[in-house]
Amino acid sequence: MNAEILAIGSEILLGDIVNTNGAFLAQELAALGIDIYHQSVVGDNAQRLRESLELSLSRADIVITTGGLGPTYDDLTKKTVADYFGLSLELHAPSVEKIEALFASLNREMTPNNLLQAEVPLGAVVFFNDTGFAPGIAVEQGGKTVIMLPGPPGEMKPMFRNKVVPFLQKDQTSTLRSQKVNIFGLGESLVEEKLRDIMTTYTNPTIAPYAKQVGLEVRVSAKAKDAEAADALIDPVVEQIKQRLGSAVYGVDVGSLQNAVVTALRAKGLTLATAESCTGGALSQAITSIAGASEVFHCGLVTYSNDMKIKLLGVDSQTLLVHGAVSEQTAQQMASGVRALSGADIGIGITGIAGPGGGTDEKPVGLVYISVNSDALTTTKKLNLYRGHISERAFIQRYATLHALSLILTATGS
Amino acid sequence: MNAEILAIGSEILLGDIVNTNGAFLAQELAALGIDIYHQSVVGDNAQRLRESLELSLSRADIVITTGGLGPTYDDLTKKTVADYFGLSLELHAPSVEKIEALFASLNREMTPNNLLQAEVPLGAVVFFNDTGFAPGIAVEQGGKTVIMLPGPPGEMKPMFRNKVVPFLQKDQTSTLRSQKVNIFGLGESLVEEKLRDIMTTYTNPTIAPYAKQVGLEVRVSAKAKDAEAADALIDPVVEQIKQRLGSAVYGVDVGSLQNAVVTALRAKGLTLATAESCTGGALSQAITSIAGASEVFHCGLVTYSNDMKIKLLGVDSQTLLVHGAVSEQTAQQMASGVRALSGADIGIGITGIAGPGGGTDEKPVGLVYISVNSDALTTTKKLNLYRGHISERAFIQRYATLHALSLILTATGS
Repeated sequence: MNAEILAIGSEILLGDIVNTNGAFLAQELAALGIDIYHQSVVGDNAQRLRESLELSLSRADIVITTGGLGPTYDDLTKKTVADYFGLSLELHAPSVEKIEALFASLNREMTPNNLLQAEVPLGAVVFFNDTGFAPGIAVEQGGKTVIMLPGPPGEMKPMFRNKVVPFLQKDQTSTLRSQKVNIFGLGESLVEEKLRDIMTTYTNPTIAPYAKQVGLEVRVSAKAKDAEAADALIDPVVEQIKQRLGSAVYGVDVGSLQNAVVTALRAKGLTLATAESCTGGALSQAITSIAGASEVFHCGLVTYSNDMKIKLLGVDSQTLLVHGAVSEQTAQQMASGVRALSGADIGIGITGIAGPGGGTDEKPVGLVYISVNSDALTTTKKLNLYRGHISERAFIQRYATLHALSLILTATGS
Repeated sequence: MNAEILAIGSEILLGDIVNTNGAFLAQELAALGIDIYHQSVVGDNAQRLRESLELSLSRADIVITTGGLGPTYDDLTKKTVADYFGLSLELHAPSVEKIEALFASLNREMTPNNLLQAEVPLGAVVFFNDTGFAPGIAVEQGGKTVIMLPGPPGEMKPMFRNKVVPFLQKDQTSTLRSQKVNIFGLGESLVEEKLRDIMTTYTNPTIAPYAKQVGLEVRVSAKAKDAEAADALIDPVVEQIKQRLGSAVYGVDVGSLQNAVVTALRAKGLTLATAESCTGGALSQAITSIAGASEVFHCGLVTYSNDMKIKLLGVDSQTLLVHGAVSEQTAQQMASGVRALSGADIGIGITGIAGPGGGTDEKPVGLVYISVNSDALTTTKKLNLYRGHISERAFIQRYATLHALSLILTATGS
């Protein structure tokens, strides 16, 4: 079985939005064992959309579209697909209700075009949109399937995972299950080297590394008659990977590092306070991006200047004079200072040079000290994060933040 | 003139890499006045690559490929294009030298396949790769042009801007210039409504709105015999747009809001301190993401708990009891408190409910107060940022941050 992904929308075609949906769907389809040979992008133009649809259907069994399901005149996906299959459009009652309820709750009058997004081709399979308004739709005819999904990733992704995956597996007698081993601190090539033999010889489960925006995950997927049998194939391989990659594995199916940190803090009833210099708030921002962080996060201080380090965190002025603001000693005092100030169980201090200016031979751009202070663990990590990237400052701030999250996770005993 | 973008590489096709090159090239081509109707992605497969190339060349005057120029056996782009045009490959001497110099400097023996990336089709225009090894290549025949660019964005982007843009403009006797009007606080549809008449009637300059990840920009582009003549066409239209959109315009060619804030603070010699609750450090993170922020940013405090608001910022416990942590009064005291604490010229306080939990009928999720305190401006803004998005928390945090940046900009008198 093979599929094509067709992104629809002038804002994607013209580059105003990066097509992250395409990468997401390609990874998900690969995990389902569905081959992909082409991805395309076309704008909100009726003729070219029709031509692109015909081309994709001539090459693939399944065409998955994203976008063009909204309520405005340039949302053409449904009409184009319905015309292609010779189907009329009808209103999907649950979606109508959801849209009407929104307008009622806002006390605003609904214009008729809002209901356009509740229209679906007659006889189609409808995927209710739990996180938005326009439903997803599957139309099957003559051995070809078109699956239309909404463009916003926040609607498309849960719809795909929760509704389209079961739809695609409906004719399969086996179940596909997977677990993701979450990794930080080892590059993709090194991970591949350490796992190459089992990656290339194992066929069920399969083992595949995926580079994430940060870090990496290794997905272990197995097919079996039911979930239990699949898990029985997966579990020992996950253990094997954990043993080979050691401390670089920060969890299995735990998501991002910040998610793992907040989960661990909550599970252990621990609280946290942060003192940041070069990361400028990126650490507290990462932690507080997770819902429920308020239960475990006392406070975060961003102390750029020496004055503020002394005044707020109680860093010793003599330390700053002798060792400098970017030093192991300052990082330690920032960590212990913010912990004492806040009464949190874990204090963390980060100081470094994010660049592009401010570096010296002795203390170059990319030098970062991260110190953690808790009953269980008091230690300081020295990093050099300079890699010569084009957006070096952003890279250094992001990776210093990730190393700090990793250190917090260690301090929780997780 | 119209172009197509063809991304080549299985790692893009299968979603292991997000195709950011496509968005970059689409925006750049649009700015050059070159139309794009299709983008495609194909893997490292000789037959499908050839078919995709033929299809793109049947639809467009120019095909721009990214990827597949490296030294390994699955880098097929050059061979496929050379075969299509009936050209043989030859070594490009400057690129050979660069590769040999690298191996010499590493004291490592060079394997012959490394020179494959220095091969170019006979008679092609070659773009030397300043930031990598594989050169870019343009082949022109029969009114069709194929431009092959390396896949890594750090090589592709500077090559495109510095070498391909002049190449594409070589036959033009006119110059294309543009200015971007930066907008925050007005939606795309409202901006279009206010500018529709001039957007649809003006032809030189043209006026086009682009939704950015945050906010919006309106690009005004003119063609003329030289830069001066083009600017003379653009300037009055930019003025007209500024008048129509009023305070929603925060600058012209100033980039992101945080960039505009840091630029304004530096220009006026003003300093800033932030006190955040619901945004959790996102404001200080945004500001410190800009190089040079350390000159203007004193400190940022993230005070999630009432205790920390009282202890660090001097918020009155009675205020918290009577009005609550999410109130105008608390926001004001956070702003004045962090200003007094730090001695900065401008203090800003943000308090609100980012959700998903913590909302009540009286104080629902999305309610945010932002207060600014400076000699020039002391005011508080009340926002309701709830929109029913799936990633509501991230949305509320991001927009509260943007409103705060906008308020700081006002406080600088910009």
